[in-house]
Amino acid sequence: VSSSEFDLIRRHFARPGAGRPDVLLGIGDDGAVLRPPAGKDLVAAIDTLVAGVHFPLDTDAESIGHKALAVNLSDMAAMGAEPAWAMLALTMPRADESWLEGFCRGFFALARAHDVALVGGDTTRGPLSISVQIQGFVPPGAAFRRDGARPGDLICVTGTLGDAGLALLLEQDMDIGRPDARAYLRRRLDRPQPRVREALLLRGLVHAAIDVSDGLFADLGHVLEASGVGATLHLERLPLSAEFRSCLDTMNAAGYAALRRFAPGLAWADLALCSGDDYELCFTVPPEHRSRLEYLAANGLPCSLIGVVEADAGLRCRLEDGSLHQPGRRGYDHFGADDR
Amino acid sequence: VSSSEFDLIRRHFARPGAGRPDVLLGIGDDGAVLRPPAGKDLVAAIDTLVAGVHFPLDTDAESIGHKALAVNLSDMAAMGAEPAWAMLALTMPRADESWLEGFCRGFFALARAHDVALVGGDTTRGPLSISVQIQGFVPPGAAFRRDGARPGDLICVTGTLGDAGLALLLEQDMDIGRPDARAYLRRRLDRPQPRVREALLLRGLVHAAIDVSDGLFADLGHVLEASGVGATLHLERLPLSAEFRSCLDTMNAAGYAALRRFAPGLAWADLALCSGDDYELCFTVPPEHRSRLEYLAANGLPCSLIGVVEADAGLRCRLEDGSLHQPGRRGYDHFGADDR
Repeated sequence: VSSSEFDLIRRHFARPGAGRPDVLLGIGDDGAVLRPPAGKDLVAAIDTLVAGVHFPLDTDAESIGHKALAVNLSDMAAMGAEPAWAMLALTMPRADESWLEGFCRGFFALARAHDVALVGGDTTRGPLSISVQIQGFVPPGAAFRRDGARPGDLICVTGTLGDAGLALLLEQDMDIGRPDARAYLRRRLDRPQPRVREALLLRGLVHAAIDVSDGLFADLGHVLEASGVGATLHLERLPLSAEFRSCLDTMNAAGYAALRRFAPGLAWADLALCSGDDYELCFTVPPEHRSRLEYLAANGLPCSLIGVVEADAGLRCRLEDGSLHQPGRRGYDHFGADDR
Repeated sequence: VSSSEFDLIRRHFARPGAGRPDVLLGIGDDGAVLRPPAGKDLVAAIDTLVAGVHFPLDTDAESIGHKALAVNLSDMAAMGAEPAWAMLALTMPRADESWLEGFCRGFFALARAHDVALVGGDTTRGPLSISVQIQGFVPPGAAFRRDGARPGDLICVTGTLGDAGLALLLEQDMDIGRPDARAYLRRRLDRPQPRVREALLLRGLVHAAIDVSDGLFADLGHVLEASGVGATLHLERLPLSAEFRSCLDTMNAAGYAALRRFAPGLAWADLALCSGDDYELCFTVPPEHRSRLEYLAANGLPCSLIGVVEADAGLRCRLEDGSLHQPGRRGYDHFGADDR
């Protein structure tokens, strides 16, 4: 079996994601030829995963393939776009057949689930890193942006927060939590489910949106800054999974000490506010759409109302007793942590 | 000065490439919002450069920025597309301000020259690697493809071949050639000029096209295979630069020995046939368009007629005396060389 680059590409990446009639020429030429739908705008995003930075080095290939596409689908969700076409730039140290097989299984399963076609790519030799570029469609003017939040808007978040961050901490030798709870959290880290369906349900309701990749506190901060507003969050409303709570409940003294090194203040709140990788959707909704939002929430849209946008700049995190809490860490920042 | 990721991106990448009215929302949100022109198809490509694989480790930052975009513009040329929008996934070991400054100078100068807007990106920490995704437009059905070559087509190539490959060899301690010739060749390696203008002039004439990134022999081979045809090349017609010829002329015995390790047969022919990185355009034109092609060639399109497409599969390289030459190496292949 020859393992030349061209054979590799042919064998693994020529399989279909979704078969889409708007892909006139797919993988195998110098470029793909695509036909955008008339009367819609394109939304485009690109995201890179680096081994040991964006996923633990022990992550299985199938999860890496899933996550590489998931973080880009999450960008589509954050823009309110319907995903369509993906391109993959894969750099890997050697042509490992079984790794590629697993990677493609994870990538294409998620692609098919979201009707996304892989239309092109580049495979090169080097340290493991994966860039995915993705495109989708929105009606003109309908894209969710970061700069649309207005005072009075309700702040909402899908799903639960802090699961992936706690999973990363638990990987660092913390022997706490029931095995099934730990497995759940690790799956939340390895196989994030992008909120594409939820975003499309929210079209017409949303003033501003972002996906939570660097932590709610940092990501919501970007929305507030871009919109020229501030906000108050009610920490007791932060959505936490049963598994997250149960792991924190069974934490021993050593675990708490380690957790406190990460989050010196309120451990649970700081994990939910400042750890990244949850890929939930944070969005603001004007108060006149409250009843429509509550209808969606009562009919299968997993969504919590956690705060309100205010005219005063800054993000205030309020505890149930009315006091303010200052998070101990400001979210993940690739070039900030070591270089300041 | 904080060197956080967000500040970095803001300061260096928020500068405009081209200002384009079809970019409704550029860098700074979860995705760009783009408005494709009505009635045209999109052409999309992605290419990665890895340090030490796609450029020598001593390459200056400005050349890396130039080349990262140039190789993608070359894909647009190979498809006959008019480039418009680029996205950049930049992975680097640390936030080096002066490196970024140089990188952006090279990238944006070329972007402005081709009216390309940088519409989004991702900056991550890791070993140096750059993926650029690019998009452009073609009238429906007008994209150049690899599978359109027909027996009787003329085979043409722009510019000259082998310059970048010889430059790479010269970097390996070969003390030959006049300094100005060496500098010219190194510039051909570091600052390839994508043949976008030439491709647009060739619209309506071309049956099949590819850009020469892995070497003419390999890349033309892809065209022939995709088209189900073969070809004969006339080696004495391969376009060689004066600098390429002069360096080979002044080569001493040690230089020839090194060259022969790379190319055991005819050194000049194997360099021109099998070394990559020239980013010239190889294309086929039906014989009825010969006079239009010659008119373009006489009026500023640098282009040589080097062979003819035939029904018999395979690529035959013929010397002036009529004998056949078999190239010693089949072009650059990232996962082929070591793994076979």
